[in-house]
Amino acid sequence: MSTSRLLIECPDARGVVARVAACIADAGGNILDADQHTDADTNQFFMRVEFEPGPGLTERAFIDAFRATADNLAIAFRLRWADAPARRVAILCSKSTHCLSDLLWRFANGDFPGGEAALVVSNHEAGRSLAEHAGVGFVHEPIADGDKSLQEQRLIGRIDDAGADLIVLARYMQVLSADFVERFRSRAINIHHSFLPAFAGARPYHQAFERGVKLIGATSHYVTEDLDDGPIIAQRTARVSHRDTVSDLVRKGRDLERVVLADAVRLHLEDRVLVSGRKTVVFD
Amino acid sequence: MSTSRLLIECPDARGVVARVAACIADAGGNILDADQHTDADTNQFFMRVEFEPGPGLTERAFIDAFRATADNLAIAFRLRWADAPARRVAILCSKSTHCLSDLLWRFANGDFPGGEAALVVSNHEAGRSLAEHAGVGFVHEPIADGDKSLQEQRLIGRIDDAGADLIVLARYMQVLSADFVERFRSRAINIHHSFLPAFAGARPYHQAFERGVKLIGATSHYVTEDLDDGPIIAQRTARVSHRDTVSDLVRKGRDLERVVLADAVRLHLEDRVLVSGRKTVVFD
Amino acid sequence: MSTSRLLIECPDARGVVARVAACIADAGGNILDADQHTDADTNQFFMRVEFEPGPGLTERAFIDAFRATADNLAIAFRLRWADAPARRVAILCSKSTHCLSDLLWRFANGDFPGGEAALVVSNHEAGRSLAEHAGVGFVHEPIADGDKSLQEQRLIGRIDDAGADLIVLARYMQVLSADFVERFRSRAINIHHSFLPAFAGARPYHQAFERGVKLIGATSHYVTEDLDDGPIIAQRTARVSHRDTVSDLVRKGRDLERVVLADAVRLHLEDRVLVSGRKTVVFD
Amino acid sequence: MSTSRLLIECPDARGVVARVAACIADAGGNILDADQHTDADTNQFFMRVEFEPGPGLTERAFIDAFRATADNLAIAFRLRWADAPARRVAILCSKSTHCLSDLLWRFANGDFPGGEAALVVSNHEAGRSLAEHAGVGFVHEPIADGDKSLQEQRLIGRIDDAGADLIVLARYMQVLSADFVERFRSRAINIHHSFLPAFAGARPYHQAFERGVKLIGATSHYVTEDLDDGPIIAQRTARVSHRDTVSDLVRKGRDLERVVLADAVRLHLEDRVLVSGRKTVVFD
Repeated sequence: MSTSRLLIECPDARGVVARVAACIADAGGNILDADQHTDADTNQFFMRVEFEPGPGLTERAFIDAFRATADNLAIAFRLRWADAPARRVAILCSKSTHCLSDLLWRFANGDFPGGEAALVVSNHEAGRSLAEHAGVGFVHEPIADGDKSLQEQRLIGRIDDAGADLIVLARYMQVLSADFVERFRSRAINIHHSFLPAFAGARPYHQAFERGVKLIGATSHYVTEDLDDGPIIAQRTARVSHRDTVSDLVRKGRDLERVVLADAVRLHLEDRVLVSGRKTVVFD
Repeated sequence: MSTSRLLIECPDARGVVARVAACIADAGGNILDADQHTDADTNQFFMRVEFEPGPGLTERAFIDAFRATADNLAIAFRLRWADAPARRVAILCSKSTHCLSDLLWRFANGDFPGGEAALVVSNHEAGRSLAEHAGVGFVHEPIADGDKSLQEQRLIGRIDDAGADLIVLARYMQVLSADFVERFRSRAINIHHSFLPAFAGARPYHQAFERGVKLIGATSHYVTEDLDDGPIIAQRTARVSHRDTVSDLVRKGRDLERVVLADAVRLHLEDRVLVSGRKTVVFD
Repeated sequence: MSTSRLLIECPDARGVVARVAACIADAGGNILDADQHTDADTNQFFMRVEFEPGPGLTERAFIDAFRATADNLAIAFRLRWADAPARRVAILCSKSTHCLSDLLWRFANGDFPGGEAALVVSNHEAGRSLAEHAGVGFVHEPIADGDKSLQEQRLIGRIDDAGADLIVLARYMQVLSADFVERFRSRAINIHHSFLPAFAGARPYHQAFERGVKLIGATSHYVTEDLDDGPIIAQRTARVSHRDTVSDLVRKGRDLERVVLADAVRLHLEDRVLVSGRKTVVFD
Repeated sequence: MSTSRLLIECPDARGVVARVAACIADAGGNILDADQHTDADTNQFFMRVEFEPGPGLTERAFIDAFRATADNLAIAFRLRWADAPARRVAILCSKSTHCLSDLLWRFANGDFPGGEAALVVSNHEAGRSLAEHAGVGFVHEPIADGDKSLQEQRLIGRIDDAGADLIVLARYMQVLSADFVERFRSRAINIHHSFLPAFAGARPYHQAFERGVKLIGATSHYVTEDLDDGPIIAQRTARVSHRDTVSDLVRKGRDLERVVLADAVRLHLEDRVLVSGRKTVVFD
């Protein structure tokens, strides 16, 4: 990655774009791409700027130069500098391995620049072989004696040890605690196997089959306290018919889930997603 | 239409396909297309056969010949004979005319063989000009003195006078009574402007906007007692983003609604839809 | 339309975004949206900026203020000021009226802000009734005595008389002269009924049927000297199967053509399309 | 697989459906699904019947019982009996492994009932690790001394030794000889990384990039003498924009290729594809 990315959020005001652009230019940066959005309900302004830092410009120097403008406009910002190391990603899964398999293939084949698979954690053994074949560490953290809380603490320990910055729930079938959610807010991506908000909760393909829908869907979203209710990052649908059994929906759905989860991971790793209340702004 | 269509429903049993095929062949008919489905939950069997009657074979004679087999296998059937007149269609609408306009264009241009627009009824005047330009009768039946029940009775009178066999609710924004629903069961098609079961009820595009979905949808379904819960005939989705306002969703949704409603009308007029409990079997 | 739009093209250089943003801010404008693209092959830079002019700022004053920057960076630009009148659109058609009907409905219902239907010209009478019902002037310009050149000159006269700025070929089935193409370069949009570059030329649905494709498509593009080879603005596809006859492809294709042509007209009227050699940059 | 499948091709004639259905019923079979198609150009009739054989009915006995009808109606047929062993599949690949990886995952996870991965052959070493991890034999058959003909003969030997019935070209980048094509006619499936017939031949993503299309596609087809011109089994498209580099097209295209190739393999293994001249009939 040879470009820096600046993500901005602030109350909307006249001239924000021009002032941010001027800051970057004055610091010797060259803007390659800038995208903006103002939420009409909250009047909150969002911006993503991708720029070449220019010779000699360091992250420290840029932040110092940008500070006054940021303070003045009440800007909250995140910066990923051009030479930042790849972000480490922890993948959590249970028994289904189609998303895990797909993600590992993509990491290995360069589909996710800016990220690297740091470890796979599962409450089952199903993913071990895939992880090991991909050269990624695998940790089995079963729920022992029904104590989910302890298991989650061990899981968090593993994630911290691995220095993971992004958590990907690749069909991880355990509800996460409020603590976990808070700790990884806007950094934990889940895939739900329905077109949310339809068929939230358990067994969405069974629900879809019962209802007789003509399309099934998949939804990737950030994890929040409310199950299947976090800000949506990506969604896709596929056609089904009366001929499809629940097993057929599961099979067709797997193709959706893989791509929709990979979409979200890529968008996140490219710093293209900002959370705005219950929604996302996706600068793609 | 030069072919006859036989629609069958019965408990599943060995040899139904062969016995029905034999009946048609023995009567001098030639099967052009046959499609079957067995509902795995109810073990109910559904079949659609399209056949050329053969020289001299009349509807009466065929029914007489088929009766014994039908009785023997407990078959309920519908028959549309090759020379049947076009079915008459009543279109109900309110203020939005995009679906009405689209349907009238399709009727006029031969997109719906086997059907003809019989009349347009509305609780508003908005559709009059379109209907009259298309040479289709327009009736304004407003809800006077807040008495919806009387208006609905007049509406049913108009439909009966026009000899309409299919009712298309082209964004008709009034809830229909249980009587109406019962009278036109599996013959009244509604378009709902969301991907059901998500966003049932009022203002689905507002709901979709609030939830921050990345796809919007439209659903055509038969009308039942439960609002927006009837058997689904067709669904489609389209991409949206954080940039889209509610107005944009409405605009993009119109394109979906038109096509999804037209899909359902065409499938119904071609006798391709059978109702199976809460679901449809669509032989397309 | 309450915002101004500035479209820019120039050789790529450091700081263009910042300098343009500064120009607008210094003139009292407030940038609402900015989008950029650099063509990697030609190193040409493209930008679209949407901004509120700010109180008292006139088009003349802005151009004067922008001139120096434009000259300095070799910027070619187009400006559409906030209070500019709707652009007038001439629709050309032949015998098929599905696109015409759709466009007229959209103009009448506010789907194309910034544009108005100025007139319909056709070498056939088929569109007259639709145009007149929509309150849009209709002109029949048949090809008399086989003299296409004279007909085209009369056609151009009609377009000029109507003050039309955008030409929409809504299934107009005549090849246009080099003169016509030059006169309306990047201002004449055609719909071709295939997924170009597949099935260019005559009878694309027949070609698609012969080849046995499983998807059909439609393509909207700017008209150039080379038939069906102009810069593509929008494309969509739809599923077909071995069951579909050529007539079915034509019917299904009409739904694609309407939407793909409307997409292009809307994008053009919102100043979202820039031509870059054989391609378009679409800032949507 | 507990059902038998009968695939039929013959000149169209009155009563074929009924007579075939009667044959199956008389032999004690129960038809679960029947699908038919008549090619309007050639008047050739195609049919696929799926049936339960019934107690005691053997393949041999059924063929004997069916022979007279088949001869009488000039029916060519293929039969796959309920207890037939899984068909063995040879996967050929070169350096790109995304399709190989996907196919192996699907075979291992039961996505392709009726088939099993028999071996992987490649002119490169890239696929070895994946194949071995999946427990599938891997054979490296490089083109030595530029002698493609010898390599192909060795390759055919490997396929024969493995008893493979279906050949899947999972991005195998070598042109096959007429001999090879003839030997595996309608049993060798290729994936081409474009929406054929657009961008046949080499480097289709580069061609698509040059042309500036707004959709890319992938096509699976049976291999014939004419490169990229065989009967199409499945196609899909995905949206792209001016922002996408050739690398982005390649990345997005991989997702299409995997699914489109898997679609074709599944349809073939379920005996749902019949070749009709340059086209396929796909009974899905």
